[in-house]
Amino acid sequence: MKANIISIGDELLIGQTTNTNASFIGNQLSEININVTKVVTVGDDENAIIDAFETAFAKADIAIVTGGLGPTHDDVTRTCVVKFFNSELVENEEILEDIKSLFGKRNREVTEINKAQALVPEVAEPIRNAHGTAPGMWIEKDKRIFVIMPGVPYEMKAMMNDFVVPRLAEILEGSKSKIKRSTLQTTGIPESTLAERLGDLDELLEGGKLSFLPSIGGVRLRIEVEDEDEKAAKNKLSEIEQKIKSKVGRYIYGRDDETLEEVIARMLEERQLKISTAESCTGGLIANRLTNISGSSNYFERGVVCYSNASKVEILRVDEDLVAEKGAVSMEVAMQMAEGVKSTSGSDIGISVTGIMGPKGATTDKPVGLVYIGYCDDKVCTAKKHIFGNERLLNKQRTMRAALDMVRKQLLGISLDD
Amino acid sequence: MKANIISIGDELLIGQTTNTNASFIGNQLSEININVTKVVTVGDDENAIIDAFETAFAKADIAIVTGGLGPTHDDVTRTCVVKFFNSELVENEEILEDIKSLFGKRNREVTEINKAQALVPEVAEPIRNAHGTAPGMWIEKDKRIFVIMPGVPYEMKAMMNDFVVPRLAEILEGSKSKIKRSTLQTTGIPESTLAERLGDLDELLEGGKLSFLPSIGGVRLRIEVEDEDEKAAKNKLSEIEQKIKSKVGRYIYGRDDETLEEVIARMLEERQLKISTAESCTGGLIANRLTNISGSSNYFERGVVCYSNASKVEILRVDEDLVAEKGAVSMEVAMQMAEGVKSTSGSDIGISVTGIMGPKGATTDKPVGLVYIGYCDDKVCTAKKHIFGNERLLNKQRTMRAALDMVRKQLLGISLDD
Repeated sequence: MKANIISIGDELLIGQTTNTNASFIGNQLSEININVTKVVTVGDDENAIIDAFETAFAKADIAIVTGGLGPTHDDVTRTCVVKFFNSELVENEEILEDIKSLFGKRNREVTEINKAQALVPEVAEPIRNAHGTAPGMWIEKDKRIFVIMPGVPYEMKAMMNDFVVPRLAEILEGSKSKIKRSTLQTTGIPESTLAERLGDLDELLEGGKLSFLPSIGGVRLRIEVEDEDEKAAKNKLSEIEQKIKSKVGRYIYGRDDETLEEVIARMLEERQLKISTAESCTGGLIANRLTNISGSSNYFERGVVCYSNASKVEILRVDEDLVAEKGAVSMEVAMQMAEGVKSTSGSDIGISVTGIMGPKGATTDKPVGLVYIGYCDDKVCTAKKHIFGNERLLNKQRTMRAALDMVRKQLLGISLDD
Repeated sequence: MKANIISIGDELLIGQTTNTNASFIGNQLSEININVTKVVTVGDDENAIIDAFETAFAKADIAIVTGGLGPTHDDVTRTCVVKFFNSELVENEEILEDIKSLFGKRNREVTEINKAQALVPEVAEPIRNAHGTAPGMWIEKDKRIFVIMPGVPYEMKAMMNDFVVPRLAEILEGSKSKIKRSTLQTTGIPESTLAERLGDLDELLEGGKLSFLPSIGGVRLRIEVEDEDEKAAKNKLSEIEQKIKSKVGRYIYGRDDETLEEVIARMLEERQLKISTAESCTGGLIANRLTNISGSSNYFERGVVCYSNASKVEILRVDEDLVAEKGAVSMEVAMQMAEGVKSTSGSDIGISVTGIMGPKGATTDKPVGLVYIGYCDDKVCTAKKHIFGNERLLNKQRTMRAALDMVRKQLLGISLDD
């Protein structure tokens, strides 16, 4: 099955928005073995959109279209669907109810232009939008499938996950050779070192495929195996995973989409431990991650964003003289911060960070990128020095990841040495 | 002048890489008033590439092509250039010297496959690559311009900045009409309400163009005007901006790329005010945003992520009985949190949030999405109720934006009513 992705929106052409929708959709389709042959981006322009529809209809089995479904004058995608499929707009009651209920929840009145969003071309089956007012459309005609969705990423993603991907997968079921994929998530090891430690890849993979996908957070290892027999494919995949784990297991924190905070949350909940954070340079980013998970109040007690020295002393009981002597960015202060937040909160674990995120703030002996991360529990109180880069926001991200990974390693009894 | 962007690479189709090259190029071309009408992404496949070349040649004046110029077997773009333009490969001495010198610098020997990269189609003028071994190509034929560059972002960007954009600008100089653009950033008002308040767009714009670009953070309004005279275009743009501001000015927090936190930071610094945060449901996200700006210690004193009730009482001195009576998610507790973080930190402003982010945690009278935001300064202590949606992470984002916007409005003396 061949697919085209059609992205609609002036903001994409002029580069004001990067087309992350196309990469999300491309990724989702590949996962279910649909072959994306082309991505086309056009503006909010009827001729260009219909032209892209025509090409997709002629050359592909599936077209996934996003964008141009909003309620304002520059949104013309629905009009193009009506023209291209020679259909008519019909009010859909279920969609109208969805829109009313969405507005009701937010205590807002439904305007006429929003009501008009319940008009769906007759040729299409509407796809309900859990997060917005524009419904998606599923159209089957002459053995082609056209899926049209809003361009707002979270609305589109929910439709893909809840409706489009499962439906396409169902249609595709019965395709012969079975492909199995998994991703091992690593952090704290550079791509080149990872490649070196994995050694000879042909030997490791025995016909499977391995991709290195580096990002700020770490390197993801994507494994793919193919076999006519589903069970054989599964076994091969798990064999490769085991071999990789035996070589670089300590850097692997999760599988597939697992996040570091999910892994930590699970361990804390299982062991009924509470954690608290004392953050200077990350400004709340670690606490934010730890509380991204529903039910985080079970393991997260409190966080202190102790930006000023006064807040370190007053809330965390860090020794004022120590700050004066060693400086706020020091191994000793990091340890006292972790100890302080643990004891004042009555938590089982305290984690702390202090550092210089840049671009300003460096001193002669303390460069931009210098970070100390402190960790305290009932048995151990320790701190680790890191030197990251020059980019403020990347440094905040890296520090947050390193702090969470320090918690993971301590909980698993993995040594903190590299 | 119309341009097509052609991006080549399997990794783009399967979504392993997001096409940031296309947005960079789109942005650069718009800046010099070249109208990008289409972005096409195809795989490393000769037929698909030549097909894209043909369409661009037929429908555009300029094609900017990236990717598929590497030294390995799956890079076929140069072969396609040779076939499409019916040309021949010729060794280019200058490029060969560049390659040798690059390898010399890195202490590596030049391999045969790298030497082969100095072969350039006769029809093309080579573009030197300051950061890699694959040269770019500039081709002019039948009044069309084809530019072919490597897909490695920093190699491509250097070629664009140093060679392609200046050359195109030179060619375009003297082209008549001037285009001016700006973006007004709004928050706290839905797209449909914004459209209604702006009223008749033809009257508002008098020939200019307006796009609504919604995202989680708010709706961006992009204005575009065109005039033969540059000054007239500028005046027209500023006139439209003024008209929009007179209708929905209170929702506009910034222009072009400005962020809400930058706007607030500037005001706080100018007035020499310090702010502190008391966050329950956002878990540190507000503090994180406020500290994304270098030099934030000038205006940010501290943040408290008071997840547990104990932390609200101990650090912020919220009345324990009040929490028991009204619940942690209440107007009264929000106000005490804001007051408490302001006074205990000695800051000028305290901002607080408490709410139910979901999906768990709702009670009969307190639904998921319920949030109270508190604000205190030396003159006023207030709180505002919001009802957001069901998605935890979106709710955290929305709450953070609403809290920052509350600070902005208070600093500007804008009423908090909708």
